Amino acid sequence: MPKDEAVEDGARPVGISLDVRLALEEAIGYGGISSFEFAGGREPVRKAQQAIEVRRAEGALPWMDLPRLDPSPYLEFASQWRGQLDNLLVLGIGGSALGTSALGTALLHPYYNALPASAREGRPRLFVLDNVDPDQTSALFGMLNWERTMVNVVSKSGSTAETAAAYLMARGVLQEKLGLQRSGGDVLHRHLIFTTDPETGVLREIGRDEDITMFDVPPGVGGRFSVLCAVGLLPAALCGMDISSLLSGAQAMDERIRNEAGADNPAGAYALIQFLEYMNHGRHISVMMPYSARLRDLSDWYRQLWAESLGKAVDRSGRQLHIGPTPIKALGATDQHSQIQLYAEGPDDKIVCFLRVGCFDREAEIPRLHAEKDSLAYLGGADLGSLLNAEQKATAWALARRGRPSVRIDVPRVDAYHVGELIFMLEYATALAGELFNIDAFNQPGVELGKKATYALMGRRGYEDLAREIEG
Amino acid sequence: MPKDEAVEDGARPVGISLDVRLALEEAIGYGGISSFEFAGGREPVRKAQQAIEVRRAEGALPWMDLPRLDPSPYLEFASQWRGQLDNLLVLGIGGSALGTSALGTALLHPYYNALPASAREGRPRLFVLDNVDPDQTSALFGMLNWERTMVNVVSKSGSTAETAAAYLMARGVLQEKLGLQRSGGDVLHRHLIFTTDPETGVLREIGRDEDITMFDVPPGVGGRFSVLCAVGLLPAALCGMDISSLLSGAQAMDERIRNEAGADNPAGAYALIQFLEYMNHGRHISVMMPYSARLRDLSDWYRQLWAESLGKAVDRSGRQLHIGPTPIKALGATDQHSQIQLYAEGPDDKIVCFLRVGCFDREAEIPRLHAEKDSLAYLGGADLGSLLNAEQKATAWALARRGRPSVRIDVPRVDAYHVGELIFMLEYATALAGELFNIDAFNQPGVELGKKATYALMGRRGYEDLAREIEG
Repeated sequence: MPKDEAVEDGARPVGISLDVRLALEEAIGYGGISSFEFAGGREPVRKAQQAIEVRRAEGALPWMDLPRLDPSPYLEFASQWRGQLDNLLVLGIGGSALGTSALGTALLHPYYNALPASAREGRPRLFVLDNVDPDQTSALFGMLNWERTMVNVVSKSGSTAETAAAYLMARGVLQEKLGLQRSGGDVLHRHLIFTTDPETGVLREIGRDEDITMFDVPPGVGGRFSVLCAVGLLPAALCGMDISSLLSGAQAMDERIRNEAGADNPAGAYALIQFLEYMNHGRHISVMMPYSARLRDLSDWYRQLWAESLGKAVDRSGRQLHIGPTPIKALGATDQHSQIQLYAEGPDDKIVCFLRVGCFDREAEIPRLHAEKDSLAYLGGADLGSLLNAEQKATAWALARRGRPSVRIDVPRVDAYHVGELIFMLEYATALAGELFNIDAFNQPGVELGKKATYALMGRRGYEDLAREIEG
Repeated sequence: MPKDEAVEDGARPVGISLDVRLALEEAIGYGGISSFEFAGGREPVRKAQQAIEVRRAEGALPWMDLPRLDPSPYLEFASQWRGQLDNLLVLGIGGSALGTSALGTALLHPYYNALPASAREGRPRLFVLDNVDPDQTSALFGMLNWERTMVNVVSKSGSTAETAAAYLMARGVLQEKLGLQRSGGDVLHRHLIFTTDPETGVLREIGRDEDITMFDVPPGVGGRFSVLCAVGLLPAALCGMDISSLLSGAQAMDERIRNEAGADNPAGAYALIQFLEYMNHGRHISVMMPYSARLRDLSDWYRQLWAESLGKAVDRSGRQLHIGPTPIKALGATDQHSQIQLYAEGPDDKIVCFLRVGCFDREAEIPRLHAEKDSLAYLGGADLGSLLNAEQKATAWALARRGRPSVRIDVPRVDAYHVGELIFMLEYATALAGELFNIDAFNQPGVELGKKATYALMGRRGYEDLAREIEG
C-alpha cells in the first residue's frame, strides 16, 4: 500500500506527465518534428511495445516484474536494525550504486548526512562509495565509527574489480578494528551484507561459507535495471525511504504504459521523440535537465541507463552501425549559467528533457527587502519554487525561439511514488528506444576489453598475454 | 611563496604535463590526427598565442593577471576569522560558484563538511549554494547555526536573479534570527560579505550604504575566468586552502606557456587537439574524465569554461556558424560502468581527456584476504591508487584499440600548486581555442534571452511586453 503524502483518501495520486509540444515544428518551426513525422512513428512504437510485451511474457525481461516485488523483507530487515546504526556504507559501482544515490538524493533530507542523529530518527547516514580513489576511500574509512557501521557490498557477479577492492579494504578495517574472524558469527552479521546473484559468484560463495546475510539480484536483471530490487530497495529501506510507494508508483506507470498504446503513453512518446531527433534531425546529444536539486542524481542514473543500453556497435543482425545518443546531465537553474550559452547558440545537436516539479515539499518565500532597488524588489514576496519554475519556462521558451527542441516531464511532487513512476517510465522508454534503434539494449560488450585490460595490468592469473600486449 | 608539500627545498615542483600520443594516427590508426595535420596546426596556434599576448599587453584580458594577485588580503581576512565560524555559505551561480566548489573538492578533506569541528582546525564548513531550489535552500537554512555562519554573496553584477533571491532569503533569516538591522553595524559585519564589481551594481550600492565588507571582482574579469580572484580565493582562504601555492602554480604555468611557443606548451597542444578533433574529425563532444574523485568538480568548472566560451552562433566577423564542442563530465573509474560502453561502441564523436594523478595523498593498501579466490586474490597487496591508475591505462588502451582518441593530463599531486597550474592551463587553452575557432571566447550573448524571460515571468518592471509574448 502506498503510504506517501501524494496518496490522499486511498485515491491514486496524479501521475507524472510528458509534454512534447516544444519539440514539434508547430512550436519551434523548421527543425522541429513535424506532425507527419510523429504520426509516422506511431506504428513502429506500437510494434516495439508489442515486441517488449512478448518478451516480458516469455520471462526474458525480469526487470519488468520488479514493481510487483514484495517489499516486506527489506522493511522487516530495516525495522530490525532501526536505532542500531550510524552509517550504511554501500560498496558498488555503476548500476549497483547509481540507483541508490538517485533515491537517496531524491527522497532523503537534502543534507541528510549532515543532520544530527536525532533528526534521522534511528536511521543511518548513507555513504555510497562507487570508486577506488585512495584519498576518498581512506578519508571516508578514517571517519566512520565502525562499531555502528553496516557495509552493504553490491555486485551481481561478485568479482567487479572496484567493488571487490573496496570490499577487501572494508573487510580489512572491520577485522582490524573489530576483530572480525573468518567464519565469524555475530560480528560478521552485524557489519556485512551482500547483495548478489542468488546462485553464482564469489560473494555468494563467501556468504555461504561464512553465513553472511545475503539478498538477491534476481536472475536476468542487469545492473542498470536493478534499482527496484534489493540493490536499491535495501539501502532505501534502511534509511527510511518509503519503498512501498516507490514500487506502487512503478507499478502504476507499468499499468498505464500497457493501457495506453505506444506513443500515447509517456514512455512511448519519450522514446519516439528521442529516436526521431537522433535519426532524422541529427541531434545526437540527449540532455536530462531537472529543475530540482533533489532529482540531480536521477540524471546520473539515467545517464548510465541511456548510454549503456543504446550505445552499440552493431544492430541485431550484426551490422556495424556505431549508434547511440550521448546523455548529458545538467541541472536547472544552475547550468543556465554554464551550459545554456552552448545549447542556445552552439550546434543544433541537442534535445533537452526538462524535469519540472509541481509542488515542492518546502515553502520558501523570498522576503520583501530593498524595496527601493528595482533589480531586487521584483523578487520579494515570490516563492523560491515559483522562481525556479519560471526559470525552466523561460529557458524552454528561449530555446524554442531559436528553434531548439525540448520536452518536459512534469513531476507533481518529488516523493517515492512519483520517483517510482519516473524510474519505470525511463526504463520502459529505454527498452522501446532499443527496439526502434534495432539494437540489443540489454548487453554491454564494449566494456569487456577495458575490464580485461585492468585484470592484465593488475597481474591477475590468466591475463599474462594481454599484459604483454598492453605494456609492449 | 609556495608552501605546498610538492615544493621541496625551494625548488619548483614538477609541473603537470600533457600526453597527446593516443590522439594520433600513429597510435590509433585511421581516424587519429596525422603528423602532417598536427604540424600544420603549429603555425595557427603560434599566431593565436601571439594574438592573445597582444591583447593581454593592451590590458584587454585582465584574467591573465590574476596569478600575480597579492593573496595577503584574503589570508589576513581568513586569519582574523579563524576559530569564529562554523559555516561559510557562498551564494553564487555559474562562475561565482563552480570554481569555489572545484577548489573545495580538490583541496579539502574529501568529507570535509562531515568532519568534527576539531579536525577542521578552526575553519568553517563550506556550503556553496548555487541554485534556487526551495527544498534544498530551506533544508540548508534550517540546519545552519546562523550565529556562527558567514554569508559570502558573490555576483559581479549584483543582480543575477538566483543569487539575488538567495541573498534576500539569507538576509531575511539573519534579520529574523539575529536581529540584523538595516545600516546594521556589528551584526552585519559578522555575517555578510559581498564579492562584486568594484564600482557598479546593486550589491556595491548596498554594501556602501551599509558599510558591508566587500571584495572586488576586477573589472573585465568574466565569471568563468574569475576563480583566481576574490571569487575563489576568499572562500578558499577562509577554509584554509593554500591560495599562495594556488597562485604560484598558475603563475608557473603562465610562464611556461609564454616560454614554449604554441603547440609545444600544454595549453597550445590541448587547444590544437581539441580544435582538430572538432573541425577535421567531427568529434563534437569533449569528455573531461579525471581519475580522481577530488578532481570531479574541476570538470564542472571546465564544463562552463569550455561551453560558454566556445559555444557561439557567430564568428568574429558576424558570420553565422553555430559552433562549439559540448563538454561532458565523466569520472574514472566510476563512469567506466556507465559511459564507456557508449564511448567505445557508439558514434565516434568524442575526444576524451583523462586526468591522472601521479601520487595520491593517502596510501591505501588492499589487504590480502580470500587468497584462495582467483577473482579477488590478484588485488591483495596492491595499492588502491595503482588500481585506479591501471583502470585509466586500461580504458585509454581499450579506446585506442577501437580507434577512439584520448589525451592525458598528468597531475603529479592533487595539491594547490598543481590545481593552480591546471586551472590556468585550461583557461589559456580556452582562449587559444577561441582564436582557432575565430569566435569571441569572452562573451555569452545566448543567455540574455532566457534571463529577460525570467524577469518577465517574475513580473519585473519594464518586461511587461515580453511577459505577454511568452504567456500568449
